[in-house]
Amino acid sequence: MTERRRGGSSRRGADRSRSTIGQRPWKVVERRFAPTEVISADEVEAIHVAASSILEDVGIRVLDDEARRRYREAGATVDELQVRLDREMVAAFLSSVPETFVLRSRNPERDLPVGGRHTIFCSTGGPAFVMDNERGRRSGTYAEFCDYLRVVQSLDIVHQEGGGPFEALDLPAHDRHLDHYFAQITLMDKNWQPQSLGRLRVLDALDMTAIALGVSRDDMCSITALSGVINTNSPLQLDSPMAQGLIALAEHQQVSVVTPFTLAGAMGPVTLAGSLALQHAEAMAVIVLTQIVRPGSPAMYGGFTSNVDMRSGSPAFGTPEYALAAQASGQLARRIGVPFRSSNTTAANDVDAQAAYESQMSLWGALAGGAHMVLHAAGWIGGGLAASFEKLILDAEMLQMMAAYFEGFSVDEADLGLAAIRDVGPGGHFFAAAHTLERYQTAFYTPILSNWDNYETWVERGRVDARTRAGEIWRSLLDAYEPPPIDDAVVAELTEFVARRKLEGGAPMN
Amino acid sequence: MTERRRGGSSRRGADRSRSTIGQRPWKVVERRFAPTEVISADEVEAIHVAASSILEDVGIRVLDDEARRRYREAGATVDELQVRLDREMVAAFLSSVPETFVLRSRNPERDLPVGGRHTIFCSTGGPAFVMDNERGRRSGTYAEFCDYLRVVQSLDIVHQEGGGPFEALDLPAHDRHLDHYFAQITLMDKNWQPQSLGRLRVLDALDMTAIALGVSRDDMCSITALSGVINTNSPLQLDSPMAQGLIALAEHQQVSVVTPFTLAGAMGPVTLAGSLALQHAEAMAVIVLTQIVRPGSPAMYGGFTSNVDMRSGSPAFGTPEYALAAQASGQLARRIGVPFRSSNTTAANDVDAQAAYESQMSLWGALAGGAHMVLHAAGWIGGGLAASFEKLILDAEMLQMMAAYFEGFSVDEADLGLAAIRDVGPGGHFFAAAHTLERYQTAFYTPILSNWDNYETWVERGRVDARTRAGEIWRSLLDAYEPPPIDDAVVAELTEFVARRKLEGGAPMN
Repeated sequence: MTERRRGGSSRRGADRSRSTIGQRPWKVVERRFAPTEVISADEVEAIHVAASSILEDVGIRVLDDEARRRYREAGATVDELQVRLDREMVAAFLSSVPETFVLRSRNPERDLPVGGRHTIFCSTGGPAFVMDNERGRRSGTYAEFCDYLRVVQSLDIVHQEGGGPFEALDLPAHDRHLDHYFAQITLMDKNWQPQSLGRLRVLDALDMTAIALGVSRDDMCSITALSGVINTNSPLQLDSPMAQGLIALAEHQQVSVVTPFTLAGAMGPVTLAGSLALQHAEAMAVIVLTQIVRPGSPAMYGGFTSNVDMRSGSPAFGTPEYALAAQASGQLARRIGVPFRSSNTTAANDVDAQAAYESQMSLWGALAGGAHMVLHAAGWIGGGLAASFEKLILDAEMLQMMAAYFEGFSVDEADLGLAAIRDVGPGGHFFAAAHTLERYQTAFYTPILSNWDNYETWVERGRVDARTRAGEIWRSLLDAYEPPPIDDAVVAELTEFVARRKLEGGAPMN
Repeated sequence: MTERRRGGSSRRGADRSRSTIGQRPWKVVERRFAPTEVISADEVEAIHVAASSILEDVGIRVLDDEARRRYREAGATVDELQVRLDREMVAAFLSSVPETFVLRSRNPERDLPVGGRHTIFCSTGGPAFVMDNERGRRSGTYAEFCDYLRVVQSLDIVHQEGGGPFEALDLPAHDRHLDHYFAQITLMDKNWQPQSLGRLRVLDALDMTAIALGVSRDDMCSITALSGVINTNSPLQLDSPMAQGLIALAEHQQVSVVTPFTLAGAMGPVTLAGSLALQHAEAMAVIVLTQIVRPGSPAMYGGFTSNVDMRSGSPAFGTPEYALAAQASGQLARRIGVPFRSSNTTAANDVDAQAAYESQMSLWGALAGGAHMVLHAAGWIGGGLAASFEKLILDAEMLQMMAAYFEGFSVDEADLGLAAIRDVGPGGHFFAAAHTLERYQTAFYTPILSNWDNYETWVERGRVDARTRAGEIWRSLLDAYEPPPIDDAVVAELTEFVARRKLEGGAPMN
């Protein structure tokens, strides 16, 4: 395999953005602490056994002919649309899921290790609307879509673009994914997620990734670069576009991020234990399909169990239940040895205190739950119906704080600073100590959004709240944005590909 | 001991307040999950050994004659103001600190278990200013002080009043503590913290507590009801008012919450390890004094290590370093078997997203760090210089969420709901399932501040953000407030006591 054009460095762009807001340098999170266990090993086993029984007794309804055929040929019992899997078969197929893999990016410095102690943060993917402080929530355009990606590219703590922040509704539905992909490749040098609705959208992403990486289309069966979210249609149903997307991803050694949406009290039982059993059954059944298609192809276990507000029926996010479900999901994913995906969610409609505490509750659920990928880590607002520019900044701050927290701190002789403590002595201060002067510039976390002015200064400077500051920050990042380098030839080839595929009719929805 | 008047129930008041905002019922938190360990056992030991060396080599400067005398008589090496303690002596005295105790309240239903898996949440204590959305930050009056206590009383998730939310600056400094105590006793039936600055303020609190509990003053040596914060004057200094407060508390079997304020980079080394070593040294030295005064008297280990912003020198709160320090402090407190106190802090000057994420970072530090008492859990804002009415509500929501999270969830046969999953089957929904109907009313956390309206409804209802909603909530609680029952005779006795002590001159500051 050749990679003639891979290796463009984004250093210039990154430095520029860093200089405007003083970010932490690009770095995938490495969690130093063991994941929190919110249920016992016996309870994990009870949920696993319950899920196994569901797959044996009820099975999963698979609406796609090819997927059912593949399940049947692999040994499942297929009865009309119903696919039943016995636990031995499930265990055998799950055993080939890789525990770690690397997602390749256009810029090799942005390659993403998935699994182990690593966590990658992704911008939000899939909302319908765009939102900002000044214009509120509205349908998005392609121009705004591109602006959103520019800000995502500028934020070093966002490791992966999450599949398009919102729909560019000024473009036709059947081929706008091509324009999305074009923007994702040319405006960023980070890894990005494709749309996984149907086979064609995945194949287009593969073709365009091959062009971007400067490799042949065949090479793309040994390079993992795409991770697509595969949602089940809970309870216990897999529809055809998702099945087709999964098959196309798995065939090409790309990642299916299998994510049941088991909302307790609605599409799942009203208990967390019940909804987790359902989630686990669906996740296992669908991850098995990835291994039937191509043993050893990468897959992820997505936990998205939350609950509905039983008064209104609307979904709740970032609740105590959400955090508990995320951490228990992490335990279940580790039980079957599949890398774990979680999310950063909130039901808040504004970039206010609620958006912060619900999101942070989600993030603790995810990170202390040992998540390897946090989708919607930056930008999600209003129950995931909108991608907010300001929320992107609020989340970036919280993500940076999480990253710093999970790095921990070192306790060696020099850190303990006994000599400094002796020298300063009772009643002194450490401002001028050599121990301080040697370290102060990098000793502590430096925020991008937090304001630490004292009250008087804060008043003098206009009492600017975090929501408003976030608006100023994304605009300054957008102003300072410089596109990461890319060969003209690559851009030309991508342009040509997009034009041809549009002429061919794109990927019409059936 | 007799307790003629103890036992007034606040049920009427609590029910009333619950009906306005639908709170979780009164309950001390029981943490189901093991504390997070952010440093290894070896690292805990390294910090402990470093702290022990500090106390042997440098010692602590004790500015109070009586305290130095007591240290000397117990075996310490006293050299002018400097008190040096060898590690065997420290270990011997620490061994008598009780690992658990109960804080008695005027209403026995509000008694507070301290230690073990319990966590109690306290309202903020000690800020200089009061703050709300409409009037901003300002000096507080006694009328506002009382209003603040009324809201604290109305919030069931706030288990203890934390020592007076702010100073009632319309009252004279030398005797306003008497009016504070009078309000703390009569407007609430919860446990409350006294001012621990000097002996007289502690004795006044003891006298007034005896009256409130209907016991004799002598009985107060076997009833633990008061917990006073004892700050060191870091680095390595204990001043006289604090020493006198501690001695008075310990003599009477009341709790010294020993809390060094080791701000890394200023009063502590620039490294967390160094500041924790300093904190641990100071905490151990001062906790030892409680045991010298009265072996077996209750004490707590307060961790308050944070850092300064090295650009401005102002303290930072709710940072990654803060959370790490809190959790490491929990490990150090457990190392010496002393119950652990932490805090909920933020540098934000407004009830915005920053206030939420910094506070929640602190709360995770505290709760996942195994804190037994979270001081400033509700109301602290602006680096602790103000007590905010709206922050009280924001925090109450976050505290309720934490409490619900730390309860976990059960995974038994009925919870797993296999029958419901089978009955509903693929593609169905659980809204009408018997499994749902039997449980839905209590299945999930119900928020007090969060708004889960969809966007359209939220806009229709005026786009009210969390900050504004918090303002509406505390005002509605204040409107609905009813004082908890108290015998007229107790009020009369307290009134008489306050009047007499004012005539005697109060407790002048020297």
